[in-house]
Amino acid sequence: MKDRPLILVTNDDSYISPGIHALVAAVRPFGDVVVVAPDKPQSGMGHAITVNNILRLHPVDQFEGIEAYGCSGTPVDCVKLAITHVLKRRPDLLVSGINHGANNSINVLYSGTMSAAVEGAMEGIPSIGFSLCNFSWEADFSGAVEYASRVVKAALENGIPPKTCLNVNIPDIPVSEIRGIKVCRQAEAYWADSYEKRTDPHGGTYFWLTGMFEGRDKGEDTDIFALENNYVSVVPVQFDMTAHHAIASLNSWNYEG
Amino acid sequence: MKDRPLILVTNDDSYISPGIHALVAAVRPFGDVVVVAPDKPQSGMGHAITVNNILRLHPVDQFEGIEAYGCSGTPVDCVKLAITHVLKRRPDLLVSGINHGANNSINVLYSGTMSAAVEGAMEGIPSIGFSLCNFSWEADFSGAVEYASRVVKAALENGIPPKTCLNVNIPDIPVSEIRGIKVCRQAEAYWADSYEKRTDPHGGTYFWLTGMFEGRDKGEDTDIFALENNYVSVVPVQFDMTAHHAIASLNSWNYEG
Repeated sequence: MKDRPLILVTNDDSYISPGIHALVAAVRPFGDVVVVAPDKPQSGMGHAITVNNILRLHPVDQFEGIEAYGCSGTPVDCVKLAITHVLKRRPDLLVSGINHGANNSINVLYSGTMSAAVEGAMEGIPSIGFSLCNFSWEADFSGAVEYASRVVKAALENGIPPKTCLNVNIPDIPVSEIRGIKVCRQAEAYWADSYEKRTDPHGGTYFWLTGMFEGRDKGEDTDIFALENNYVSVVPVQFDMTAHHAIASLNSWNYEG
Repeated sequence: MKDRPLILVTNDDSYISPGIHALVAAVRPFGDVVVVAPDKPQSGMGHAITVNNILRLHPVDQFEGIEAYGCSGTPVDCVKLAITHVLKRRPDLLVSGINHGANNSINVLYSGTMSAAVEGAMEGIPSIGFSLCNFSWEADFSGAVEYASRVVKAALENGIPPKTCLNVNIPDIPVSEIRGIKVCRQAEAYWADSYEKRTDPHGGTYFWLTGMFEGRDKGEDTDIFALENNYVSVVPVQFDMTAHHAIASLNSWNYEG
């Protein structure tokens, strides 16, 4: 009899977040689950890894009956440590999330949740990142759990295309209002950044990042369009960053100085 | 008379690194230079941004006659703070580096140097990341300066294709032995990670990331091939992570649960 799938669960909001507990509930029926997740919030960490400092890993008992660890590093550190030190064999699936907050469009690059999934794909592991379009700690994850379950089932049945992971965003609406799943491309969008300048109690200046998200892409094949129209968005994500279409024009340049 | 180009310089090795001073020397003839760089090493920070903590920015006098700042954040934080708070107008060019160590192939995703350039491209600024294939603080940057100068001149003359930045790696050989510039794609490669497990003086366990880099791509159109054959590699890099070729197959899945 075939072994049950081994499923690695991670995220960027830390192992105490409601979102990762929702994800464990969603994937538990499909296999044996092991959790390796940051021990503190790691939002916005992108594909950061810890190279100039040490990492700690400690067992946690937040997940009843499931082997689980907190890691002092980034989401990508969690994936690397899980594969090399925690798991007894290569996992059959990596799932990351469910993030508290959307990771559509350009946010795939800033997102620790998605970077963990990208790292999984780089390691050759079928990987999926899940995000709910609600930043609140008290968000309702019931629709997200239902659709995470559907996507995981389909991924285990079909296999994720090689060198690709999935970026799944779930709209923040009751599950009965979700109209289904749309496979999309990443929308073009932009963060109109600003910083709030403040003075500390000692007279020093410091800054807080703020900023407004600007969708700039009216395409009906985008993740933003899907979410605005009450669909779950599924974007296949690759880690070849080459702008292949630009190679020809760069070959026409004169580099002789 | 047209203004001289405004050139923003950043990196991930901090403003005290020899590499950023080499880059300032390379670009200074082409325009007015402003430096905003991390105040401590930020290698491996990828596209991380600081969202849950404050940022500090302070003037530094390491660059004679040049406006320069140290920033407490990541390379991407430096770019965002420079554009929104430091520069009086949008820069005409962003250059990042010269990194102490190669950033070819898959390392574009881990690299703070390249993530700063990607952030610049996301902001619509022509952006280039430079890396020398030598991790040493005492590396010889003379070949890197010569070729950084050639690439910057060509980029200012031709304009970088939109939504693209350049990833330039320079082999660690005397400038007379560099055979020229090759426009390439990102090679497929892999980090065979491992962690060294140690015990601290108090009996606790901790880990250091180690790992071996494995090129897995024999293509002669890759950055690894160019560097191995004594060429400077130039890879156009995009920030659309969509695996467009995978959309059709994902649309054939049954998501009905």
